[in-house]
Amino acid sequence: MSELAIRGVRITPVAVKDPPLLNSVGVHEPFALRAVIELDAGDGLVGLGEAYGDDPSLERLRRVAPALIGLDPFDRHELHRRTATALGEAPEDMPTDMIGPPSASKTLAATFAAFEVPALDLVGQAVGRPISDLLGGAVRAAVPYSGYLFYKWAGHPDGEPDGFGEALTPDGIVAQAKWLVDTHGFGSLKLKGGVFPPDEEIAAMHALRGAFPEHPLRIDPNTSWTVPTSIRVGTELAGVLEYLEDPTEGLAGMAEVARAVPMPLATNMCVTTFDDLPAAIEQKSVQVVLSDHHYWGGLHESVLLGGICRTFDLGLSMHSNTHLGISLAASTHLAAAVPNLSYACDTHIPWQVEDVIEPGVLRFVDGAVPVPASPGLGVTLDRDALAQLHEQYLTCGIRRRDDVGYMRTIEPSWAGTRPRF
Amino acid sequence: MSELAIRGVRITPVAVKDPPLLNSVGVHEPFALRAVIELDAGDGLVGLGEAYGDDPSLERLRRVAPALIGLDPFDRHELHRRTATALGEAPEDMPTDMIGPPSASKTLAATFAAFEVPALDLVGQAVGRPISDLLGGAVRAAVPYSGYLFYKWAGHPDGEPDGFGEALTPDGIVAQAKWLVDTHGFGSLKLKGGVFPPDEEIAAMHALRGAFPEHPLRIDPNTSWTVPTSIRVGTELAGVLEYLEDPTEGLAGMAEVARAVPMPLATNMCVTTFDDLPAAIEQKSVQVVLSDHHYWGGLHESVLLGGICRTFDLGLSMHSNTHLGISLAASTHLAAAVPNLSYACDTHIPWQVEDVIEPGVLRFVDGAVPVPASPGLGVTLDRDALAQLHEQYLTCGIRRRDDVGYMRTIEPSWAGTRPRF
Repeated sequence: MSELAIRGVRITPVAVKDPPLLNSVGVHEPFALRAVIELDAGDGLVGLGEAYGDDPSLERLRRVAPALIGLDPFDRHELHRRTATALGEAPEDMPTDMIGPPSASKTLAATFAAFEVPALDLVGQAVGRPISDLLGGAVRAAVPYSGYLFYKWAGHPDGEPDGFGEALTPDGIVAQAKWLVDTHGFGSLKLKGGVFPPDEEIAAMHALRGAFPEHPLRIDPNTSWTVPTSIRVGTELAGVLEYLEDPTEGLAGMAEVARAVPMPLATNMCVTTFDDLPAAIEQKSVQVVLSDHHYWGGLHESVLLGGICRTFDLGLSMHSNTHLGISLAASTHLAAAVPNLSYACDTHIPWQVEDVIEPGVLRFVDGAVPVPASPGLGVTLDRDALAQLHEQYLTCGIRRRDDVGYMRTIEPSWAGTRPRF
Repeated sequence: MSELAIRGVRITPVAVKDPPLLNSVGVHEPFALRAVIELDAGDGLVGLGEAYGDDPSLERLRRVAPALIGLDPFDRHELHRRTATALGEAPEDMPTDMIGPPSASKTLAATFAAFEVPALDLVGQAVGRPISDLLGGAVRAAVPYSGYLFYKWAGHPDGEPDGFGEALTPDGIVAQAKWLVDTHGFGSLKLKGGVFPPDEEIAAMHALRGAFPEHPLRIDPNTSWTVPTSIRVGTELAGVLEYLEDPTEGLAGMAEVARAVPMPLATNMCVTTFDDLPAAIEQKSVQVVLSDHHYWGGLHESVLLGGICRTFDLGLSMHSNTHLGISLAASTHLAAAVPNLSYACDTHIPWQVEDVIEPGVLRFVDGAVPVPASPGLGVTLDRDALAQLHEQYLTCGIRRRDDVGYMRTIEPSWAGTRPRF
């Protein structure tokens, strides 16, 4: 145990097929990028992680990797120090603006997080305990996730229908929700909004309420609305929404909306680093913070975020970008071990038809993922799948997520600016 | 590892000789009470803890103990649940009012903390790692402590001189400081104030500054001063104090003082639970929070407090009541693993001539305690000493700390009320 040390670091970018999911700035490209991280501790002990796979993120991971040789995976303070030193002055840069404005501290936190999870996977395997145990123990045997609804086309313009079907109307969204609930048992539903004029999305939420009278419902327009629009939508959806997510941009605007609408406001765009918390709390901008270990600095920092939310009487939920099974495992351990993470978590997993882990461990049972019981993350890399998805990465031509630019190839006049409504 | 479980709980009250240390409400009695907690996991594996030893605290520990049989020491959420369930409606009660007003949440946190530390000692021993590693790794090889100065008599009125000497004047305090610095190498000094009229204590601080021009200095009158007195003292000690600790009572009074004096205000009396933090931050009542794992809910909750202080740009230091080596080990692991716990920590240890642990592991080197490197806390119970100090407990006649009442046996007119000045 005292000899546990990182002896090698492998970073493998992968591309996974992604359906044309619409959002406030554009549409998902045909492939989403992720990086698979392996920390090798010798004797066959490998810690797994998953991070953003865009070129700038990859470059940062590769810059830090050599500095990790010899590191004790228990020593996350030293991991942080080495990450910060290797990065130098971290750039203000994130792979998507769907998670708020970039900042140097967020870049550092994301780079650190990419290695913290596989380090914990190593620790868990070395001591024979699931990561949830390392975080204080699972308070829930399975972690509820929400069914993530998207407006979407039947397929990418250049491709075949993807099999998920088109959803561009209230009826289409209800049909999609029925598929998600029937297939995975989700007990909460969230619509990615900001795509169509607000009245259409209000109609979609009322249609969902009619079809699912007991399901908590959320809508997330990703700051696509002005303050007046946000207040109007929030008012019209009184009694319908569990929470309203990022209706408008910035702490001041969110605070103004929060004072006027009857439901809590949630965010993964105006509170995305610890630096944002003091002002958000002072201004009462949000009532629910969406955690995401990928940019909040890993699992332990996410536990800290949970403790801060508990202390300041803020709700806690969980955000998702497109991800694979390694991150689903990490999110599940985390959410299991944070008592006040009591909202169903977001996940894109139902939209992914490809993965890098061996199937069977992670599954939805009544909309919840049972917490893996085996040591560490509890998931195993499927090396054939990894090789195939890396090959797909090499040939797909995408190196940085660009929902706006992709939409412009389809609608040349597309602005991709917010607020839209 | 997966079989790790608590099979037995032993709670042994002990009494240790204590010198007549003066404070704002009275004087330390001839014996101080502590409880030694042993969690037995079988196969000789025992986790050690140390907690308050007064009757009500002991009663609560004993009420919880049977509920811990079978508990997995990794599962601190379950430990908390069982503690809360066994306690039922926790009383508003603490063994001393030197740590702020009692509250139900503080009682629960203190009771939980008493078992969390030995549970972590078990985990550390089971995985072969010091507790500092379980908290993210030691960022400092040794933890600096401050030399804790007290006004004191030469001995208890009914007893022999204790050998520490009398200290009732500025010269006496300087002599005491020289002994502490010469003996242990302390690089910071703190005076327990609120004992004599403020001008005498101001003179003592100036005398310390003269004798120790480079040592950071603190004074802690335990809310013995009114707001105007606090402002006057703070103003007169401009440039002398590293921080001014709990000059006056309550968040509003502290905020008023903070606005008027040039040095940071520290507290272990108006911010002593997570419940206190939001108002303290909003009112800017304090600039430094003194952690204490005994009532902040254990080591992990103290790490959370550290994260909150980092997030809200508050300083972090550490408080001490009279304690023994088990708690010194716990405090040292904690302070080593919290990067922003950068102030020298308080400890009463130099005033204790008796202990329950085998000597040799914990020592002051240049005023700092090297972090124990062996698994868990890294200290071992001295069973003969434990038996002897338990026997002393049985015969000493003290069952609850009462600095006020003891002072009244000496000065019958003693009020023991605050503010005094």
